[in-house]
Amino acid sequence: MGKNFSDFFLSSECMIRMASGWFYLSCLLLGSLGSMCILFTIYWMQYWRDGFAWNGSIYMFNWHPVLMVAGMVVFYGGASLVYRLPQSWVGPRLPWKLLHAALHLMAFILTVVGLVAVFTFHNHGGIANLYSLHSWLGITAVFLFACQWCLGFAVFLLPWASMWLRSLLKPIHVFFGAAILSLSIASVISGINEKLFFSLKNTTRPYNSLPSEAVFANSTGMLVVAFGLLVLYILLASSWKRPEPGILTSRQPLLHDGE
Amino acid sequence: MGKNFSDFFLSSECMIRMASGWFYLSCLLLGSLGSMCILFTIYWMQYWRDGFAWNGSIYMFNWHPVLMVAGMVVFYGGASLVYRLPQSWVGPRLPWKLLHAALHLMAFILTVVGLVAVFTFHNHGGIANLYSLHSWLGITAVFLFACQWCLGFAVFLLPWASMWLRSLLKPIHVFFGAAILSLSIASVISGINEKLFFSLKNTTRPYNSLPSEAVFANSTGMLVVAFGLLVLYILLASSWKRPEPGILTSRQPLLHDGE
Repeated sequence: MGKNFSDFFLSSECMIRMASGWFYLSCLLLGSLGSMCILFTIYWMQYWRDGFAWNGSIYMFNWHPVLMVAGMVVFYGGASLVYRLPQSWVGPRLPWKLLHAALHLMAFILTVVGLVAVFTFHNHGGIANLYSLHSWLGITAVFLFACQWCLGFAVFLLPWASMWLRSLLKPIHVFFGAAILSLSIASVISGINEKLFFSLKNTTRPYNSLPSEAVFANSTGMLVVAFGLLVLYILLASSWKRPEPGILTSRQPLLHDGE
Repeated sequence: MGKNFSDFFLSSECMIRMASGWFYLSCLLLGSLGSMCILFTIYWMQYWRDGFAWNGSIYMFNWHPVLMVAGMVVFYGGASLVYRLPQSWVGPRLPWKLLHAALHLMAFILTVVGLVAVFTFHNHGGIANLYSLHSWLGITAVFLFACQWCLGFAVFLLPWASMWLRSLLKPIHVFFGAAILSLSIASVISGINEKLFFSLKNTTRPYNSLPSEAVFANSTGMLVVAFGLLVLYILLASSWKRPEPGILTSRQPLLHDGE
């Protein structure tokens, strides 16, 4: 058992060295893309939509795109990839699980504040809530995110669940993690599209004349898509997954009982 | 080698029997969801948007949502799952590859006709092309689909590519297949959202009052999302992948040279 473990440890070290180069290059690209997504959305709202406030006005709405892109896409995407860090491949998993849960909690808090911004703006201005397909899909994504976090916490962090249950739920957890990100991207795209139709109607340069705001915001949407696809690639690219020690433990859960 | 092959064949048969029940139940659900996506879009265009024509009018536009949902989502999704059919797990792969390529070609033709419908309508009415984020993302998805089909045909169907190249490109081909479907879903969602804002402005019951058309079209969008997620689940759920015969051939390409 000791020899098997040291073999596994050595082969893991080797795989870490092999994978690290490309992985960190991807992380650099991911960090740059994620930062650009948030900064571009802030710049769009600041430069063309006159900035931010927290008073029920349209300036309060402007927090909504920034916080949803930051929470449901960038922080969510980053938090999803914790187990793809080669450092997490060896040693105890508990610290990485706590980091994974904490980062997702931060993403969820940003998301909820982003929802408060849009609901308060709507209620303040007598605008209906939750009528567009954008809002239906977005609220579904947030609801699934809440379910996913609670179920993940209950099953993979609390000690009661059996290894059998964890190994059964792990692929479902990973799949729904990726699915929620896909739904978030679709929500963000439809949200940017909708916002541009709202903001650029009755102007001298409407959306269909592609003013600079439209080009900038469309490009921000395409950046969000590029970021999301890169996250999904790193998440699903098998060579960057934690190597399994052997066929018998190939369905090993994230955390052993009592770890 | 003969014994290994018969062992593999027997274990494959066993796995096929085990997986078949749930797989076919999922296929039934998938077929129902896919049919509903297409039929609901046709009904939306026929009942609320006064049907179809091929004359450059708004009735020609009405083909666009139907053909894009049919081509880029339903036919595309179905064509992606050919290798998940348990019958494709044993025996020669060439017929399944031809079916995979042919179904995707049908999906692509529907897509191109759907694009012709919207471009002709725009050009006929003097409406700008390709200005919204919906159109930027949609045209990117179609362009990637074309690249994916041509590259797939060149590498996996024509006989020149080495096993090494095929095994290198296979996971990228699968990833981009799933990524293009995700982009298509985001395009469809933003397209339905945009169409409802266009169609229901200046009416007695605008979009924000949720008239029956809005509820119906929003629900169609949610059905498209459900269909897409089910395709991605079947595509990525490992237990329904063709079992690999052994570790040495675990990177076996889709088609051996000369097969």
